[in-house]
Amino acid sequence: MPEVTLAAVVAYDGSFFSGFARQSQPHVVTIQGEIEHALSILFRRSVLTTCAGRTDAGVHALHQVVSFDLTKDEFSARSLDRLTSALNALVDEHITISLIEERAPGFSARFDAKAREYRYRIYTGVDRPVLISNLVWHIPHTKLDVEEMNKACTYLLGEHDFKSFCKAVSAVDKPTCRNIFELEFTHEIINSYEVLTMRVVGNAFLHSMVRTLAGTLVEVGKGNKPAHWAEEVLKAQDRSRAGQCAPAHGLIFWNVFY
Amino acid sequence: MPEVTLAAVVAYDGSFFSGFARQSQPHVVTIQGEIEHALSILFRRSVLTTCAGRTDAGVHALHQVVSFDLTKDEFSARSLDRLTSALNALVDEHITISLIEERAPGFSARFDAKAREYRYRIYTGVDRPVLISNLVWHIPHTKLDVEEMNKACTYLLGEHDFKSFCKAVSAVDKPTCRNIFELEFTHEIINSYEVLTMRVVGNAFLHSMVRTLAGTLVEVGKGNKPAHWAEEVLKAQDRSRAGQCAPAHGLIFWNVFY
Repeated sequence: MPEVTLAAVVAYDGSFFSGFARQSQPHVVTIQGEIEHALSILFRRSVLTTCAGRTDAGVHALHQVVSFDLTKDEFSARSLDRLTSALNALVDEHITISLIEERAPGFSARFDAKAREYRYRIYTGVDRPVLISNLVWHIPHTKLDVEEMNKACTYLLGEHDFKSFCKAVSAVDKPTCRNIFELEFTHEIINSYEVLTMRVVGNAFLHSMVRTLAGTLVEVGKGNKPAHWAEEVLKAQDRSRAGQCAPAHGLIFWNVFY
Repeated sequence: MPEVTLAAVVAYDGSFFSGFARQSQPHVVTIQGEIEHALSILFRRSVLTTCAGRTDAGVHALHQVVSFDLTKDEFSARSLDRLTSALNALVDEHITISLIEERAPGFSARFDAKAREYRYRIYTGVDRPVLISNLVWHIPHTKLDVEEMNKACTYLLGEHDFKSFCKAVSAVDKPTCRNIFELEFTHEIINSYEVLTMRVVGNAFLHSMVRTLAGTLVEVGKGNKPAHWAEEVLKAQDRSRAGQCAPAHGLIFWNVFY
C-alpha cells in the first residue's frame, strides 16, 4: 500500500527515561517506546520509528526528529494537528511533540540528517545549582581555563577518526570517522546561573562521543593537560587515552539539520 | 550565654518539599525542617531558625535568607566555611546553602528585611516546556497582551490594602497593608524557551499574594478583563473578586534586601 512519510519534532527531559531506544524489558520507559506505543494505539498496528540521534539514559533533547511511515488511509484519517495532539495526550508528560510534518517518501530522520548539534553544560560554582541541577554537570571548586579549552577544540575540528572518543563496546569494527564543523565553549546565563556551554555541530557522532569530548576538554580546562593534548588523544585512536565520559544529564540534543 | 547571630543564604527546588515551614508530622520534608535537623545534629540541641519569606509547597528560592543564633562557644568551634560545608552535607540535595555570614546580634531574617523580590514565570507556547516544566506555569494556546498586563500593574504599585490578594484562612484580622515598589512583566529566554516573567518587589507579601497577583494579571492578559479592573479588585478588599492563585511551581523567591 502506498505510504506517507512523516517527521515529528520531539523534546524531552531525559531524567525520566532509560534512553531513547526502545527496550524489550517491561517497565523500562524509553522515548521511542512511548512514541511507538502511542502510535500503535492510534493505528492499531505496530509503527516503527527512526530518530536523528539516539540519546542515552538521562540525556535530554530540545529538537529531536523522529520519522515514521503511515499508509495513505491512515494519513488521511486525521489532520497533522490532530495527530500531534493525540500523540501528546498518549505519551509520558516529560515528552512533547511540537510539530509533525510530511516529508518526501522514504525520508529517514537518521540517514538524511546532514548535521547534528549538541550542547553540554557545566557549572563550576561552589553551591549546588538546585534550580538547574538536572541540566548541568556540577564541577565545584574548579576554575576552568576557557581560552585553553577553546584552543584544544581547534585540534578536533574537521574530519578525523574519533575512535578515541567512542565508547568501546562493539566487537565489530564500525567506521569511526566523523566530521566536526563547530566546537566551542561560551558562557551563558540559565535561570541566573552562569554556566559554561560546549556547543558542537558535526555530521554525526559516535556512541558517547559528545560526552567524552566534554570530559576530555575539561581536563585541559583544569590545567591537567595542555591544549595540544587533544590532538594526541585524537591520533592515538585509543579510548583509554581520552578523558572521562561526562555525566548524561549535562547533555542536550539541541538540533538536527537536513 | 552571649549569642552570635548568623544569616545563611539558601536556594532550593521547591518541587521536592512540603513548603519552607517545619511541620510536626513525620515524613513531611520541609526546608526549615531539613536545616534545623542539620543544625541539631551539629550542635546537639534544637536550633530555631527564621526566614525572610516562608514559601509554600512547590515554590522555589534562589536567595532565601535564614537566620539563627549560636552561643559564642558553638560559633568559635568551627569556621563559617566549615559550618556551610557541614550543613550542605547534611541537608537534602535539593537545598544548597551558598553562604553563612555573621550579623549584628538579634538580627532577624524576617523582621529586618526591607524588601523582598519574587519572580513568576509563564510559558504560553503550545508544546509542553519539558526542559523547564518545574519552573513555569504553562498556559498553552494563549496569547497574553503584555502591554495591558503592565498597564494593570501600575494600579497596584505603592502602599495599599491587599486583602483581595490574600488567601482567606485566618479568622483573626491581621494587617493586610503592603507596599509594592516594582511590578512588571518582561520576556526572558530560559534554556531556549521564551517565557514571560513577572518581577515584583515589595516590603512584604501576604499569604499567596504573589501568585494571586499573577493569576489576576493573567486575566487581563487574556483580555477577559480590562487593565483598570486591577484597581477594582484592589479596592474591593475581597479575595473572591481577584483571579486564581497561580500554580506554585512558577514562583521563585528571588532575593531579599536588608
